[in-house]
Amino acid sequence: MNVLVLNPNTSADVTDLLVAAGRAAAAPGTELVSATAAYGVPYIATRAEAQIGGAIALEMLAERHADVDAAIIAAFGDPGLLGARELFDIPVVGLAEAAMLTACMLGRRFAIVTFAQALGPWYEDCVAMLGLAGRCAGVRALGGPFRALSSVQGEKEGLLVDLALRAVEEDGADVIILGGAPLAGLAPRVADRVPVPLVDPIAAAVKQAEALVALSPRKATAGTFRRPAPKTTTGLADALARRIEHRD
Amino acid sequence: MNVLVLNPNTSADVTDLLVAAGRAAAAPGTELVSATAAYGVPYIATRAEAQIGGAIALEMLAERHADVDAAIIAAFGDPGLLGARELFDIPVVGLAEAAMLTACMLGRRFAIVTFAQALGPWYEDCVAMLGLAGRCAGVRALGGPFRALSSVQGEKEGLLVDLALRAVEEDGADVIILGGAPLAGLAPRVADRVPVPLVDPIAAAVKQAEALVALSPRKATAGTFRRPAPKTTTGLADALARRIEHRD
Amino acid sequence: MNVLVLNPNTSADVTDLLVAAGRAAAAPGTELVSATAAYGVPYIATRAEAQIGGAIALEMLAERHADVDAAIIAAFGDPGLLGARELFDIPVVGLAEAAMLTACMLGRRFAIVTFAQALGPWYEDCVAMLGLAGRCAGVRALGGPFRALSSVQGEKEGLLVDLALRAVEEDGADVIILGGAPLAGLAPRVADRVPVPLVDPIAAAVKQAEALVALSPRKATAGTFRRPAPKTTTGLADALARRIEHRD
Amino acid sequence: MNVLVLNPNTSADVTDLLVAAGRAAAAPGTELVSATAAYGVPYIATRAEAQIGGAIALEMLAERHADVDAAIIAAFGDPGLLGARELFDIPVVGLAEAAMLTACMLGRRFAIVTFAQALGPWYEDCVAMLGLAGRCAGVRALGGPFRALSSVQGEKEGLLVDLALRAVEEDGADVIILGGAPLAGLAPRVADRVPVPLVDPIAAAVKQAEALVALSPRKATAGTFRRPAPKTTTGLADALARRIEHRD
Amino acid sequence: MNVLVLNPNTSADVTDLLVAAGRAAAAPGTELVSATAAYGVPYIATRAEAQIGGAIALEMLAERHADVDAAIIAAFGDPGLLGARELFDIPVVGLAEAAMLTACMLGRRFAIVTFAQALGPWYEDCVAMLGLAGRCAGVRALGGPFRALSSVQGEKEGLLVDLALRAVEEDGADVIILGGAPLAGLAPRVADRVPVPLVDPIAAAVKQAEALVALSPRKATAGTFRRPAPKTTTGLADALARRIEHRD
Amino acid sequence: MNVLVLNPNTSADVTDLLVAAGRAAAAPGTELVSATAAYGVPYIATRAEAQIGGAIALEMLAERHADVDAAIIAAFGDPGLLGARELFDIPVVGLAEAAMLTACMLGRRFAIVTFAQALGPWYEDCVAMLGLAGRCAGVRALGGPFRALSSVQGEKEGLLVDLALRAVEEDGADVIILGGAPLAGLAPRVADRVPVPLVDPIAAAVKQAEALVALSPRKATAGTFRRPAPKTTTGLADALARRIEHRD
Repeated sequence: MNVLVLNPNTSADVTDLLVAAGRAAAAPGTELVSATAAYGVPYIATRAEAQIGGAIALEMLAERHADVDAAIIAAFGDPGLLGARELFDIPVVGLAEAAMLTACMLGRRFAIVTFAQALGPWYEDCVAMLGLAGRCAGVRALGGPFRALSSVQGEKEGLLVDLALRAVEEDGADVIILGGAPLAGLAPRVADRVPVPLVDPIAAAVKQAEALVALSPRKATAGTFRRPAPKTTTGLADALARRIEHRD
Repeated sequence: MNVLVLNPNTSADVTDLLVAAGRAAAAPGTELVSATAAYGVPYIATRAEAQIGGAIALEMLAERHADVDAAIIAAFGDPGLLGARELFDIPVVGLAEAAMLTACMLGRRFAIVTFAQALGPWYEDCVAMLGLAGRCAGVRALGGPFRALSSVQGEKEGLLVDLALRAVEEDGADVIILGGAPLAGLAPRVADRVPVPLVDPIAAAVKQAEALVALSPRKATAGTFRRPAPKTTTGLADALARRIEHRD
Repeated sequence: MNVLVLNPNTSADVTDLLVAAGRAAAAPGTELVSATAAYGVPYIATRAEAQIGGAIALEMLAERHADVDAAIIAAFGDPGLLGARELFDIPVVGLAEAAMLTACMLGRRFAIVTFAQALGPWYEDCVAMLGLAGRCAGVRALGGPFRALSSVQGEKEGLLVDLALRAVEEDGADVIILGGAPLAGLAPRVADRVPVPLVDPIAAAVKQAEALVALSPRKATAGTFRRPAPKTTTGLADALARRIEHRD
Repeated sequence: MNVLVLNPNTSADVTDLLVAAGRAAAAPGTELVSATAAYGVPYIATRAEAQIGGAIALEMLAERHADVDAAIIAAFGDPGLLGARELFDIPVVGLAEAAMLTACMLGRRFAIVTFAQALGPWYEDCVAMLGLAGRCAGVRALGGPFRALSSVQGEKEGLLVDLALRAVEEDGADVIILGGAPLAGLAPRVADRVPVPLVDPIAAAVKQAEALVALSPRKATAGTFRRPAPKTTTGLADALARRIEHRD
Repeated sequence: MNVLVLNPNTSADVTDLLVAAGRAAAAPGTELVSATAAYGVPYIATRAEAQIGGAIALEMLAERHADVDAAIIAAFGDPGLLGARELFDIPVVGLAEAAMLTACMLGRRFAIVTFAQALGPWYEDCVAMLGLAGRCAGVRALGGPFRALSSVQGEKEGLLVDLALRAVEEDGADVIILGGAPLAGLAPRVADRVPVPLVDPIAAAVKQAEALVALSPRKATAGTFRRPAPKTTTGLADALARRIEHRD
Repeated sequence: MNVLVLNPNTSADVTDLLVAAGRAAAAPGTELVSATAAYGVPYIATRAEAQIGGAIALEMLAERHADVDAAIIAAFGDPGLLGARELFDIPVVGLAEAAMLTACMLGRRFAIVTFAQALGPWYEDCVAMLGLAGRCAGVRALGGPFRALSSVQGEKEGLLVDLALRAVEEDGADVIILGGAPLAGLAPRVADRVPVPLVDPIAAAVKQAEALVALSPRKATAGTFRRPAPKTTTGLADALARRIEHRD
């Protein structure tokens, strides 16, 4: 089984982190292939960037969907996820959704802990969109700048653990999600310093992609995720235009 | 006061409908200026198209925001609305949000009546995103094809009235929103055939834009709609890149 | 367009504040006329007073509704609002509802900041009645007495700004509503001391009254806000009795 | 123990029905005393009438609260209930609230069945105000006129049973509340024709009044139901003015 | 009227506390009979223990239901309550449900105050199961060990009062429920030290059992609490097997 | 990896169905071992039976948890699931929870389709307990008797497909869950006759068990799923008593 790890950001080093952490969780026979956005921003952190990055994710999927069994939109917040599920036939999974649904099996309420304040509102919108606000104990984010995206997990490790501890003690979290693609792979390293289960979103996403492929769900031809009827387009990226116009 | 009517679709004739209906509702001294997307789809009808169209709306706003006092994202479903509120300093209003909030003052529960089945799921997501599911009696959409977008309101007038009547009788709607930009201006024409108030979204949006300008709200420098810190970008449309990078 | 500013309290000096602040927001051609309750309490602050004041508001509307295009029930908490919408044919707007719906276009979550603890529970009931609890970051009220209703906004200006700052920092409010009729006109004076948009309820209400008149909604003859069938009454105020008995 | 059955309507014959049905449920030692509104409407059926009738209920309670151990506001919909709990020291119970809370112990979801369409919206607002929408399977009301309020339960008996059956079969109700004071005493007569438990609101209210008296709860001096501080009034009914001004 | 006070725990001294406190609230003519679990745990404090204890409660009810008019499952958290309502014909009441529904008539939001941290999560699940989360200001529990279950209310009296005060001041509770069977009878002793009404769950449960008996509700033969069709069983306790197999 | 398929019912032939269907979904290296309840009922269909069956599930887990890496409580409705997560150190998954969370990645709203009316209320309680009511389009169940549990999926195949089609067309379901252990393995056989994805709960549960094991979550020592402190027990099954008393 081939699973696409699609990073809708331009940071190739974060893609590498994601693939490495994802491989550690994959079942025998699951191959991860990756793609990094050719344009956009280094990391999506706001609603505006998610709007733009989600459109980029759809372009990237239009180019690659035929070659894989499933895809992971590998930015926590899942830009473009619902649109992708309409447009393409393969299962598509998001880091945030996969992490939250997985966390629901490990406790009553999860908290999301992340490395930058700017991410908070977008993550909260994401919880609400999934209808999981009642299962979320809160979103906690570190303040202050960081040196580099691909090394932020090392730089802030201690502070992130402290934040997780506060989420457990003050917010009543039963599970902690380490949110944000640049934290991929951090969970196993700090698991013994936090007294509740940790969820690494890319690990959760790989397993959920495997779960969906195992169910071999048919592409809906009814309901709200059926493929939209063909529509003319103007000036869109070529592969995306072909997909929307039913020329592929 | 100048208000931008920003159509994130490529259908200039729908822009004309919107401007005409909007002018009928505008106060003395309110000027409507318009813009139509140079690329994209003729009308946004799905989550995928809203993802793409919302990014286009941000590009268009980046080019024009400095010249107007407020902007209306003139596609029902409000693609890019929340991102626009982060990124720009002027008030930005959406057709769907303006219509729903206005409808809340005319009844306990509103129904959205529209001309194509494909629009339903996106509209429902939009109701949920606003937190107004408890005030919504349902979304009803006509089946069947239509000849042309700019004349669909005439072609389907009788059927839309029938659908509105069913929303009142069967769903318990106190107010009807005629959703979808191509229906702009229809409400006054059929008002005497529906026994509850009708809301024309572009009329509501013009009035809400005027309301926000009258309050002269400051741009937030705190909270979740403060302008994001500058960030480097790659390959984005020029005006949008300048805005995100704080070069304007 | 004539809009009635109906103060269901007996404080004529607060009516004057409301009218002055409302005029500053009104469009050209909007005339504000006012009325102050002849009996009742100086300011409604509790559920019991809102019950009584709402009945007084209906009596006042029964006397004046035929002479105006719309009415504003100008006590934050909107006593009698839903009953008024059943009974009369003109649009009726409430300070609290107008402020909250307007605030929804300026941020994800609004906070209500007010000048007296006694008002809190009534305001919270009002948020719940509108179905907007998910959009409300909280209600914060000053403790301690105040010298006079009509000058409380000056007396407490600094404390109210401090409370607004705490609502932004501690409660995560994106917008602040300065609740309570006696604070009418305060928002513009303190706007540069609070880092998020402020909403002045009377300004919002005037604009929303204009919005509803612009839509020229028909009086419902179906749904839950149709005019009730005639009913006999005993001992009610004359104009109200005539309205309920369909003698006007 | 003396319990006041306070009918905020002017129909003395309905008061008699209520007292008779209430006595059948009362424990040994519970005395029911009654009061009927001297002015207002024969039966409250709309939000406007509830606004007016609730103010009348507060006037009536102001006159009689010192002579009883508890009071029942004996109109389904509970006009003035929350205000009464602020203003007075004795427990106050409402027909609708008592019926719904009691019904929660007899099934997962209750339906309210009543005799006139006009009552529906007010009852639904009442369910929402209690926060019990998740426990309510729906409100069903008969159409068509009725001859006399005090005999409507006999006139419509068969139709009400049919409506109850439909609520069970089509809405999934586990319990039926026969809503509306004029239906007092009907439940025992038709119990064997409906396959789920029936709740007679006045019986429930008498038992809940007894429950509250048995707990001998202190009057709150904190929280949102503490007695409001004294306030000057103008032109209110004498006993009510004395209570609000702390002159009693 | 005979009411069974069924303690699904093995602590006979707590049963005695419950019966004593219950008798103080009972109406003339209400007899309390009691039963204590022959096996299980001394007090149920977790979800696992509630699962086990609820099955024990069903066994105990199977043995005794024919001899009483109603039953109280006398562990706060109500293990087995919904199953009991399916299986048996008599009204069955739970301490937690009865306390919460009663508290709803004494304030807008109740808090639950209890003597051990371990109880918190189970109590919160219980609030959610009832659909009353919107009426609950929170669950507060003492930390630290206690000497003996049957004397914990004396040992911790001062600390419990302090916790109740914090629930009023910090959580906005209008009413306090003293949760946990071992606190039976504490409320009247400390009522004058807490500024809002207190609810003693066993007192509330006795009154609610009386309320249900007074309504003489029929056993449902439709809806989700009708008696399940007979089913074969293997190895269950004899009386329970007979009841499930319709041999009684 | 060893995963226990724990059937808390006494029907060994249903266990066989579950294991066969589960194996088809398992990754290389996942071994399924099974256990069938030695006492109880042939299939759990009501709240009372779930109460009893959940206690049996805990007993069975106490005997086997040390020998496996994860366990599946293999009755749709998940009796004992939350208690199991407190008491044991391994991940525990439920058929209903796994199916619903998986379905959330395949559509906006799922419907549950099952073979017997008696199961409906329990399934609905289960949806509510998970906080997923907003994602559930409804529960639909066949009426009428069936010949044998282990062959009901063949006997009712056509009727179940019809019911699924109605859930799609009338309830707006994007995904169908075939609920109830006796339907294990049916989904792949009928997938091409239903126009939306189908979820087979045992397949989903096996994949979710694999997902949790891959995350190697630590046993919580804080939060609401930490292992409860040791407690004395009386008369419980031996292995369960040892686990509760911390003697294992």
